[in-house]
Amino acid sequence: MELKLVVAIIPPLSLESVEKKLQEMGVRGVTAVRAKSFGAYANFLAREWLVDQVKIEIYAEQNRAESIAAAILDTAHTGSPGNGIVAILPVERIFSVRTKSGVIPNALRPSAPRE
Amino acid sequence: MELKLVVAIIPPLSLESVEKKLQEMGVRGVTAVRAKSFGAYANFLAREWLVDQVKIEIYAEQNRAESIAAAILDTAHTGSPGNGIVAILPVERIFSVRTKSGVIPNALRPSAPRE
Amino acid sequence: MELKLVVAIIPPLSLESVEKKLQEMGVRGVTAVRAKSFGAYANFLAREWLVDQVKIEIYAEQNRAESIAAAILDTAHTGSPGNGIVAILPVERIFSVRTKSGVIPNALRPSAPRE
Repeated sequence: MELKLVVAIIPPLSLESVEKKLQEMGVRGVTAVRAKSFGAYANFLAREWLVDQVKIEIYAEQNRAESIAAAILDTAHTGSPGNGIVAILPVERIFSVRTKSGVIPNALRPSAPRE
Repeated sequence: MELKLVVAIIPPLSLESVEKKLQEMGVRGVTAVRAKSFGAYANFLAREWLVDQVKIEIYAEQNRAESIAAAILDTAHTGSPGNGIVAILPVERIFSVRTKSGVIPNALRPSAPRE
Repeated sequence: MELKLVVAIIPPLSLESVEKKLQEMGVRGVTAVRAKSFGAYANFLAREWLVDQVKIEIYAEQNRAESIAAAILDTAHTGSPGNGIVAILPVERIFSVRTKSGVIPNALRPSAPRE
């Protein structure tokens, strides 16, 4: 099963609703980092060269990664410029430090969304 | 058209000139994150184990990614150890949160560098 | 020779021992970023939705990347939930800003671990 990294770069204002949505989906292991963005994404009017952004990263198997990306797009979408982007990157291997073995993160577990 | 992620890990002192250069090139959506580096890149004299770095990330289609990487190399280059590195990673998909559709970020737009 | 990016997302408490281990291995160019994690990795008991994590990133050629990943797994492992994850991502090109040429970072240099 192919592994992916979902990266979302979104305004801080969108973070809480995205967090809540991912929590509802039972997504675990969401890493968030504060970032600055020089030049807003698809913001043709903006002249400001520096805005706060949050970068979130989630490792997941492919199908789940696509669901997660779609959920972030839906949740962070307002239709305004500067809504951010979501990218999917290939990942070769993921290991759990606790078990020292390979893991398939965020495999779809419909009956147990919040373990 | 293939999508790439350009990652540059450079000293904070290089950031302003790199920003300016990217701005002149009409590059949008540059994400910057503060980082620490343990062990300097190619710095054979350094014994310090901890230095400030800035990590910048730019999503772009392939040709543009190579131009951006070359521009960062030119701008951040001083010839001294610890100048940093630039890496290019493969990216599978990029979506705009505003339009919820796929985007080709930083496609070359020669006539409109600053929209 | 294939290039990889090793990403480890570990608790801050594990950072010092991981740093020391990587230093002993002669690994250069370890980038560290503070992060928050929403939902702990493989932590089935945790209800806290926000924990501090450190994300470290190391560019290396393939064999060396696997050694580095294994060393991080060994060093950060306690067997408790929330130990974190280690991922390996493909990388296409890496350039040194100092030389403006391609580099093979962290190639295995058994006789000179700390240059």
